Amino acid sequence: MGFDPATLKYDAAGLMPCVAQEAATGEVLMVAWMNAASVAATLATGKVTYWSRSRGAFWVKGETSGHHQRLVEMRVDCDRDCLLVLVEQEGPACHTGRKSCFYTAVRGGEEVEILEVSHGGTSGEA
Amino acid sequence: MGFDPATLKYDAAGLMPCVAQEAATGEVLMVAWMNAASVAATLATGKVTYWSRSRGAFWVKGETSGHHQRLVEMRVDCDRDCLLVLVEQEGPACHTGRKSCFYTAVRGGEEVEILEVSHGGTSGEA
Repeated sequence: MGFDPATLKYDAAGLMPCVAQEAATGEVLMVAWMNAASVAATLATGKVTYWSRSRGAFWVKGETSGHHQRLVEMRVDCDRDCLLVLVEQEGPACHTGRKSCFYTAVRGGEEVEILEVSHGGTSGEA
Repeated sequence: MGFDPATLKYDAAGLMPCVAQEAATGEVLMVAWMNAASVAATLATGKVTYWSRSRGAFWVKGETSGHHQRLVEMRVDCDRDCLLVLVEQEGPACHTGRKSCFYTAVRGGEEVEILEVSHGGTSGEA
């Protein structure tokens, strides 16, 4: 059936979490939020477009940093309340300059940084 | 530094999203929610333990279905408001009997089921 972003189940703020996974490697890069309009924009443009909760505005990933995410495929979960986007990521996904936002592991009860900074970080959202 | 689940940034309901990824394959299996107590329980027991928003109760993954998730590693994102758990998944992660909850892809504007049911589904949470 045709896909309509309005049929997804958003939270009280009209948002749902979206996991970005690098298509080529399977690495989970980040989790951010989308509303129905950003889902539609992502599909229409091929540029992954989140909703920034802190800025209250659309957030075309890479718009300010140049670290774009090109959509390879969008997937919807069984409850229709979460998204997975497979992407081609240009540069680091994390605003700290690391490839993934998940660079802190819990090992033996301690926090351990497992990814190096590959690019200069950005001061705001990437 | 020592990891304390209380230092993470939960939402107004005391929850944060957690992405479960199969450690061996990189496949994203599901997204569910954890509170501080379920983060602590997951680390203490090695059994991935979510908080069920619908039941308002701890949800030890596989407790009723037998489809356990064994924790391989927990990771925290840069904003400390999202978790990634690398897991060993026994049987399907999805309550529909599919390996992953993300079995619906959006291709050419249509919804397409891309994963087959490998096990009988469960009526409730898996």
